[in-house]
Amino acid sequence: MKMRALAACAALLSTAAIAETPNRPQLEAAVKAGHDVNVKRLQDWIALPTIAAERRNVREGAELMRRLALDAGFQQAEIIPTDGVPGVFASLDAGAKDCVGVYFMYDVKQFDPAEWSSPPLEARIVDRPGEGKAIVGRGAVNQKGPEATFLAALHAFKATGRKLPVNLVLVAEGEEEIASTHFPQVIANPKVLPALGKCLGVFIPTAAQSATGAATITLGAKGAVELQLISSGAKNGRGPKNDIHSSLMASVDSPAWRLVKALDTLVADDGHTPAIEGWFEHVRPLTDRQKQLIAQGVAKQDEAALKKGLGIQRWAFDEDFLTSQLRLASQPTVNIQGLVGGYTGPGGKTVLPGRVEAKIDLRLVPDMTKDEAVSKLKAHLAKHGFGDIEVKVSGGYGPTQTDENSALIRAQRAALTKAGIDYAMSARSAGSWPGVVFTGPPAKLPAGQVGIGRGSGAHAPNEWFLVDSSSPRIAGFDQGAMFYIDFLYELAGTARR
Amino acid sequence: MKMRALAACAALLSTAAIAETPNRPQLEAAVKAGHDVNVKRLQDWIALPTIAAERRNVREGAELMRRLALDAGFQQAEIIPTDGVPGVFASLDAGAKDCVGVYFMYDVKQFDPAEWSSPPLEARIVDRPGEGKAIVGRGAVNQKGPEATFLAALHAFKATGRKLPVNLVLVAEGEEEIASTHFPQVIANPKVLPALGKCLGVFIPTAAQSATGAATITLGAKGAVELQLISSGAKNGRGPKNDIHSSLMASVDSPAWRLVKALDTLVADDGHTPAIEGWFEHVRPLTDRQKQLIAQGVAKQDEAALKKGLGIQRWAFDEDFLTSQLRLASQPTVNIQGLVGGYTGPGGKTVLPGRVEAKIDLRLVPDMTKDEAVSKLKAHLAKHGFGDIEVKVSGGYGPTQTDENSALIRAQRAALTKAGIDYAMSARSAGSWPGVVFTGPPAKLPAGQVGIGRGSGAHAPNEWFLVDSSSPRIAGFDQGAMFYIDFLYELAGTARR
Repeated sequence: MKMRALAACAALLSTAAIAETPNRPQLEAAVKAGHDVNVKRLQDWIALPTIAAERRNVREGAELMRRLALDAGFQQAEIIPTDGVPGVFASLDAGAKDCVGVYFMYDVKQFDPAEWSSPPLEARIVDRPGEGKAIVGRGAVNQKGPEATFLAALHAFKATGRKLPVNLVLVAEGEEEIASTHFPQVIANPKVLPALGKCLGVFIPTAAQSATGAATITLGAKGAVELQLISSGAKNGRGPKNDIHSSLMASVDSPAWRLVKALDTLVADDGHTPAIEGWFEHVRPLTDRQKQLIAQGVAKQDEAALKKGLGIQRWAFDEDFLTSQLRLASQPTVNIQGLVGGYTGPGGKTVLPGRVEAKIDLRLVPDMTKDEAVSKLKAHLAKHGFGDIEVKVSGGYGPTQTDENSALIRAQRAALTKAGIDYAMSARSAGSWPGVVFTGPPAKLPAGQVGIGRGSGAHAPNEWFLVDSSSPRIAGFDQGAMFYIDFLYELAGTARR
Repeated sequence: MKMRALAACAALLSTAAIAETPNRPQLEAAVKAGHDVNVKRLQDWIALPTIAAERRNVREGAELMRRLALDAGFQQAEIIPTDGVPGVFASLDAGAKDCVGVYFMYDVKQFDPAEWSSPPLEARIVDRPGEGKAIVGRGAVNQKGPEATFLAALHAFKATGRKLPVNLVLVAEGEEEIASTHFPQVIANPKVLPALGKCLGVFIPTAAQSATGAATITLGAKGAVELQLISSGAKNGRGPKNDIHSSLMASVDSPAWRLVKALDTLVADDGHTPAIEGWFEHVRPLTDRQKQLIAQGVAKQDEAALKKGLGIQRWAFDEDFLTSQLRLASQPTVNIQGLVGGYTGPGGKTVLPGRVEAKIDLRLVPDMTKDEAVSKLKAHLAKHGFGDIEVKVSGGYGPTQTDENSALIRAQRAALTKAGIDYAMSARSAGSWPGVVFTGPPAKLPAGQVGIGRGSGAHAPNEWFLVDSSSPRIAGFDQGAMFYIDFLYELAGTARR
């Protein structure tokens, strides 16, 4: 570990400790011996993409997930039906005192092979100059690569005949990419919830390292709700039902103007601040500790480079970087993802559209909930006379937050320190993940993203995940698997303290 | 003529009279003898589509237009260059006392052959059960069919060695479908303007008959300006330049919300009434005579059928039919043709768009002008703090209005009566045509749409124009040509009274 990193971590490590992994060389040898098989397992998994939005490989993906769990040493694994894509529940009883939950997503984002440099399901291994060798494929980093790395750790236990230091409960879903709509049904399942209830917390494997090798522990994330606001003459009972000639505007109601007027009420005149009634009612202010973590993050970031990367010249309201980052973590938002309706081609066309749509996402902070946000939005529209605007919620979940003093986070910090990896703690990510499924009721468990290694291109073409790293500071597949082994021992040790 | 039609026309005919067409049977025989050649000329014209938006067949279309004029008896015809698609100017000196201007468009709307039942450039002649035989092709009714019908009339004069009763000035453009942006340059040409200055008025050939055989004389039309309002991070100098992840909404300005806020200022809270400052400054109220004509039109229309056809259940503001039709004729509008920006596919996608666009058309009434409308819109946006919203005008023109007592309209009414065709006069069409190029400065001439016959599908697939009519009340190609012959004699006669 570099001096800078040691200094940065010193203060943070006050609550963490480092445990020994017994007979570590034996496990490490097993990981290395299994490398080719482990990578092949990942490639085979990538070759079978489950895409919930397309109902693609739903049964096959769930069944493969179940078999992957059994192969890795889970004694039982079963498919849990939901009203949507099924989940998978598995358990590995190591006879240990403590238990940890593992969350997998077995689905991936849609893809267009024409945009890729190598076939997205082929999971080809390619050179990344200066970084090593990477698998290129859909799901490589989001999330099959990190998940396969965790499975490789379990296979090392199996290969060496060793018992895990903690028991495991696996919950997997196939709808993460469509906002985990039915995953709460998996958690609430009468077999699953009691099993999770015994766990110290739940984590999803991740590849947390940046190009410099630094990692981030994210203690929370905003919630996200995606919805469409649809204004149509068919729905409002006045018409027009379809696009008509634009010359009729003087005599006919315009669903497009109606949408504009409805949208206008949703944010303040600054074009930014949510104006939905009661929106801030349950917004919990940042704690001093959260503000401190955000200030530490700001101090480490290159503001100019960040702005350049985003293609922006100023932060909203012309705020300074720290103020804007505090806003980013603390403020709920109402964003327009897209506007579509009527004529959308080049130039113009003389129509009065019968239907127009705004695609919206809401980002929520503690203690807002999805149900609260959606019902407040609907009540607001109704109160302002826009009850005919259809609110079509396609998915979403509330915010998640985990205590940095939980065993899960303390063990993660200790494992990172042991691996010699510089890390920072982020109070809250503005991006979202469905951690609230665990941190919220009924489970109410600590939840986080755990893992080292590196990859990028989630949701984009040429998604990749590093399997052989040419840098000693960045983990490849084997180092990533060893991290999980160390982490599980840390967790057992932390839990006993 | 049916009794109903005679009764309806009796009051209107007070200013019209019916002139005799000398040796009419000789001309009629020539029209019939030329039928096949005349229809073939139309088919060949359809086979060469000029599409200004695609810069397709610009030179070829202008040259064909020039040759069509010379073939029909114009002694001179020349291409008039503009900053866009060229016009054509031709003159036919019959040694007559009076002169009339003829306006042709030689361009057509874009088309997608996949949507057509027969190839759109093949101009195939197909049966229309109960109506006769029609040409199906792009431009069939808008506007090559009616224009070719007028050319057929001129060929009849040529074939019989007869002189026309009036001199002709032809002005043709190839940009009608992109709002005639450069056509004023043709009119202002030092050869063209003096020639037009000698004319009684200008008309464009049209197929004015409905399914019942009734025709409409339209005395005016709203102007139309098409423009795009574009909000972008690149233009406003704040960013983002491209779409970024939607989680950044809390810290980054949203061009989409900025567009919504700007649009919101353009119409009143009723989602209908224009709120651009000074918008109604030059709006001239309807005259009592115009209101009378509108009331007559309302009395003849089937409101329920009209509403059903439009897919609407109520008129705007829940007005009665007459009030709404008075509004339709008298009120300028600001219409949203389409909204497009960010993610526009199915469902949602977590982006914050860098650019969004509203496609707008403005409909103008006398005495508004295009320049006034555009400058008021820009001033309004600037005053409300939206000076960064780009106003991209793609074309347009002001309103047009012609006196029903002009020789042009009186001759048209007389010719319709002579043809035994029931007709009504419309005070003002909510739809638009660039008549203001003639009725406005510098020419300031009466202008209208003249012709009988029938067709439909302008701008749509399977556009058609009747060439052989199975109904004695509806004109086919030959009857349409005879109508123009009678009309020219009426015009000469009317002008002398």
